[in-house]
Amino acid sequence: MEIEIIRKRQQELLDLFDTAPIKRAYNMQFHYTEQGNAVFTLPYNPNFDHALGGIHGGVLATMLDNAGWFTAATRYNFWIATSDLQVRLLLPAIKTTLMATGRLLKAGSRMAVSEMEVKSENGDLISIGSGSFVVTSQKC
Amino acid sequence: MEIEIIRKRQQELLDLFDTAPIKRAYNMQFHYTEQGNAVFTLPYNPNFDHALGGIHGGVLATMLDNAGWFTAATRYNFWIATSDLQVRLLLPAIKTTLMATGRLLKAGSRMAVSEMEVKSENGDLISIGSGSFVVTSQKC
Amino acid sequence: MEIEIIRKRQQELLDLFDTAPIKRAYNMQFHYTEQGNAVFTLPYNPNFDHALGGIHGGVLATMLDNAGWFTAATRYNFWIATSDLQVRLLLPAIKTTLMATGRLLKAGSRMAVSEMEVKSENGDLISIGSGSFVVTSQKC
Amino acid sequence: MEIEIIRKRQQELLDLFDTAPIKRAYNMQFHYTEQGNAVFTLPYNPNFDHALGGIHGGVLATMLDNAGWFTAATRYNFWIATSDLQVRLLLPAIKTTLMATGRLLKAGSRMAVSEMEVKSENGDLISIGSGSFVVTSQKC
Repeated sequence: MEIEIIRKRQQELLDLFDTAPIKRAYNMQFHYTEQGNAVFTLPYNPNFDHALGGIHGGVLATMLDNAGWFTAATRYNFWIATSDLQVRLLLPAIKTTLMATGRLLKAGSRMAVSEMEVKSENGDLISIGSGSFVVTSQKC
Repeated sequence: MEIEIIRKRQQELLDLFDTAPIKRAYNMQFHYTEQGNAVFTLPYNPNFDHALGGIHGGVLATMLDNAGWFTAATRYNFWIATSDLQVRLLLPAIKTTLMATGRLLKAGSRMAVSEMEVKSENGDLISIGSGSFVVTSQKC
Repeated sequence: MEIEIIRKRQQELLDLFDTAPIKRAYNMQFHYTEQGNAVFTLPYNPNFDHALGGIHGGVLATMLDNAGWFTAATRYNFWIATSDLQVRLLLPAIKTTLMATGRLLKAGSRMAVSEMEVKSENGDLISIGSGSFVVTSQKC
Repeated sequence: MEIEIIRKRQQELLDLFDTAPIKRAYNMQFHYTEQGNAVFTLPYNPNFDHALGGIHGGVLATMLDNAGWFTAATRYNFWIATSDLQVRLLLPAIKTTLMATGRLLKAGSRMAVSEMEVKSENGDLISIGSGSFVVTSQKC
């Protein structure tokens, strides 16, 4: 796809995310980098800690899923659906803002693949992941 | 471990989860089956929908992580930490209570492995997953 | 698909595997169960051991991939292609015949998902895995 | 660990691989980069093609496992064991030399994590993967 079409899709997806209930539940911010990578930022919220005092792995998975999906979705005029999500937790995330970034590895006609990472506010690599996203027949 | 020790650990872990901030954020319920499988139930909460109107994949990941971790944790007197989480989304989850169940595959000295599933309230298999959990040197 | 069509596809796939170079390289046997699960058997071959004296994890991955792919492929008149493969190694496999079995979890229009397992000749669960298989536009 | 100790371990691991039956079965070459990444090269061998004429995904999994394991193993005086392996196949690999490279993400006391990639001889990214490797109590 041409750059201007991708930019237009990015704006549509930014607007879409503004309507997402989970955006408000988590208070996530979202933008695209110059290279087209989706970036999600989550200020620390103690409500999403697990019982042992770190941020729950499910929060990291949520951010990785978002980063991968919104990076890949820019390349399609059809909705994509997360098919699988692989998450590795490398370091505990404790009382920190988190930032998740996606990178597109493949934009096939049937499936897209992204890889993703989450860093803490001091730049530590907290988690990596990857996901595949099936291209549905439903037009955006 | 003997059954009564596992039962005692289960009670401690049930009590632990009651103190988890994320329990309240999501309003999850938690119990163990007779076989020792951790089961988490999440009543439908529209706040955790994504922008296209289904329950966010990160919610499923959160439930799968919990189900696997709390199933495996019963076998150890040391804290375990999720090392990786693999999630497959098989069907969209739309406006439904969700129920996640863990099953222990391995309880090694250094690492445990669980497999997990999430079903909808009408019994559809929404998601499967598996996780590995490293056994830390930190006593419970 | 109807049972007789699936049976016909099974026979075609059994014939196809007979032509696979990797079948001969590994000396794998292959059949379908009554339920339609692909089963691959590999007699112990010391040539596929790693340096520390167990069967190489790549051999298990090869068997898991086969079991998942040939289970899912029966449901399509188009070729499918492995998109991802997740493998967990639970026990070392030492000087043993291995048997891998696939089970279909989803046969969607764009993607299939299988879960798989490998057992040793004495019935130990050596490895589990799962895979997704994209449905291509290429007719069989 | 200090650089010279890692260099010594690299040499021991290079020597170890020379004794691996699977090295001969596949005819794989192995070296370390200046940065300590294990690199495995596999000249095209039609015996490892699948029935549809590409190189079998299990071959890619074998190379990814090797690249991840031998990268991580340099950091330990105890044997490590592959615990899980995640493989994504991005492009078909057809009649090409393959080159797999590992990169260490974490060298924890109980577990190491590597990410890996396989490229074709013309530089296409064929496959990515990641693995976790449990640190056993068995001294090297």
